[in-house]
Amino acid sequence: MTEFRIIRKESAGFARRGQITTAHGVIETPCFMPVGTKATVKGLTPKQLVDETQSQIVLANTYHLFLRPGHELIESLGGVHKFMGWNGPMLTDSGGFQVFSLSSMRRIEESGVTFRSPIDGSSHQLSPESSIAIQEALGADIIMAFDECTPHPATYKEALDSLELTARWAARSSTARKRSDNLLFGIVQGSTYPELRKLSLEKTIDVGFDGYALGGLSVGEGQAAMYDVVQEFGPQMPELTPRYLMGVGTPEDLLVAVAGGLDMFDCVMPTRNARNGMYFTRRGPLTIKQARFREDPEPVDARCDCYTCRNFSRAYLRHLFVSKEILSSVLATIHNLYFYNQLMAGMRLALERDEFQQFKKSFLDDYKTSDV
Amino acid sequence: MTEFRIIRKESAGFARRGQITTAHGVIETPCFMPVGTKATVKGLTPKQLVDETQSQIVLANTYHLFLRPGHELIESLGGVHKFMGWNGPMLTDSGGFQVFSLSSMRRIEESGVTFRSPIDGSSHQLSPESSIAIQEALGADIIMAFDECTPHPATYKEALDSLELTARWAARSSTARKRSDNLLFGIVQGSTYPELRKLSLEKTIDVGFDGYALGGLSVGEGQAAMYDVVQEFGPQMPELTPRYLMGVGTPEDLLVAVAGGLDMFDCVMPTRNARNGMYFTRRGPLTIKQARFREDPEPVDARCDCYTCRNFSRAYLRHLFVSKEILSSVLATIHNLYFYNQLMAGMRLALERDEFQQFKKSFLDDYKTSDV
Repeated sequence: MTEFRIIRKESAGFARRGQITTAHGVIETPCFMPVGTKATVKGLTPKQLVDETQSQIVLANTYHLFLRPGHELIESLGGVHKFMGWNGPMLTDSGGFQVFSLSSMRRIEESGVTFRSPIDGSSHQLSPESSIAIQEALGADIIMAFDECTPHPATYKEALDSLELTARWAARSSTARKRSDNLLFGIVQGSTYPELRKLSLEKTIDVGFDGYALGGLSVGEGQAAMYDVVQEFGPQMPELTPRYLMGVGTPEDLLVAVAGGLDMFDCVMPTRNARNGMYFTRRGPLTIKQARFREDPEPVDARCDCYTCRNFSRAYLRHLFVSKEILSSVLATIHNLYFYNQLMAGMRLALERDEFQQFKKSFLDDYKTSDV
Repeated sequence: MTEFRIIRKESAGFARRGQITTAHGVIETPCFMPVGTKATVKGLTPKQLVDETQSQIVLANTYHLFLRPGHELIESLGGVHKFMGWNGPMLTDSGGFQVFSLSSMRRIEESGVTFRSPIDGSSHQLSPESSIAIQEALGADIIMAFDECTPHPATYKEALDSLELTARWAARSSTARKRSDNLLFGIVQGSTYPELRKLSLEKTIDVGFDGYALGGLSVGEGQAAMYDVVQEFGPQMPELTPRYLMGVGTPEDLLVAVAGGLDMFDCVMPTRNARNGMYFTRRGPLTIKQARFREDPEPVDARCDCYTCRNFSRAYLRHLFVSKEILSSVLATIHNLYFYNQLMAGMRLALERDEFQQFKKSFLDDYKTSDV
């Protein structure tokens, strides 16, 4: 039922145009996945996600749904697709990243991680087995092995110990799997040490997964270090399965990562920045609260075909933001997700025509002008 | 360009089925007008307002738009319709009610009201002339005379003085009008004193307006006192022009008022209560945060055809509300406005069949069960 197919590879590099078939439909790759943390992409209805942003797949966070409303509840209601009214493909993360970034009092042991809920202070454990069980209860089409997201900075020894724990957890995650209608991806750690990334990649491949992800990036290592990892290890990841760069990133990051052979991406940036009044445009980001937009009758991006740009002026969008209106978040989220999905669609078309490098250069030339 | 036409009157009472033709389309009456205070019905796109709630007309608040972003700005951008992307009929209030309820340091004189902006403390005056000028700059299809909303309680003398001031302001409002493509409505005050309501009605009719509104209700006088005014004076309002009950109300209120011959209504209740997690249903209001809905797979109202009820369970809607998700406000607003608009559509159909009294009784019998 699930498979990955490469439609075309660029002749002069590593980028590829593919398709992932899941139980809830086909994902055209390279693709961006909007983040729907608590079983909602903040502010948008599933209908808007499809009609107005052309999103293909939504990511939900296991950690948040485990704590509230609980995976048993969601399972009893028919799974997360039905719960949130999203009929397309879904991916859940393992919960590992959030345990490390959001919980206090966390204790890491071989068996798993014990932590306190920020909601009510209650104590919980996540382990490879429980993470997989929770994700299978939620019922996403693509689920992730439970890993330790190595913090940055990490010493060589810390990064080595961490990736070895992740590798042991990867094997347990794979064994814990009970459903056969999903894809399970393994996660490569190793911090910014090339030999440790290589070691982690080998250990993850040894376990054997339906896809592979680069984790532990965009955690403070800086763009240059992240690009080094992506450019060196993207092409080394197994070719015949999907490659997922977790938690990344800016439009530039996505172009660089696709050039490195990555296929899938998620990031809160387009949605979170939208709520802060930041609009992505072909000529760089636009901060709508600026006084210069007060009387501006133009849309955010005159060349953008999204609902927001077709119907509203910068002056109105600034008014909504300044007035703290809910619709400000809604319209900015529509625009930013449309922008990200259009960027990915542009990459896919360029790949079909074997013109990816020209597309990348042309986009970055425009984007860097910051003349909005 | 603008006119009011009565299609059918019920044979056994005062209710009527009508149509108001405006520069931006026809309003089928009786009708409910969602409140779009700052040029947005909170949380919904104009597309959702039409497609998902079947709203016919939106009300915007002159006071808020005057203070921010300013009527000159909105006029320079083509008017409030274009500003907010709403192409249907619009009504603006005069600003009088908000000056009294929201501003500090207000001083009422014959010339008008001086007040301080809650945004920046700056001093402003609203008068009949400036209110009409602001409303004509905004460009709504229906605009309101500038009145003093008599507070409750008011002594007989206070209510008399107040309605006389409102009558003088009504004449000035009428004279101040410059556009001919809108309808100007006069507002009847008089508190809860029948003879003062009668006097105010006469004085307002003497000025002569395109429609008449009952103001100064739903300000603390209580349901029984409000019903007394509506039932006694609704039928006495001019028959051949639209009758508007301002700021009202609950589903029961709307049925009682339509029975009294009223045609138009606005109220923040369906939208504000939505943001507080209250859903209107045929069997009474439902408070979604209640623990009994935690695992409830049913929609809010199984007989409701709105987007929210067609796609989401009470359990999911409760999760969104408890998690303080924006989508909670969006989905509840869609449902409540659909409910209000469906109620009005039900009344219209019943009026066309001359079955209004049966419809009213049947609705109220169901509604009072509160068995949701």
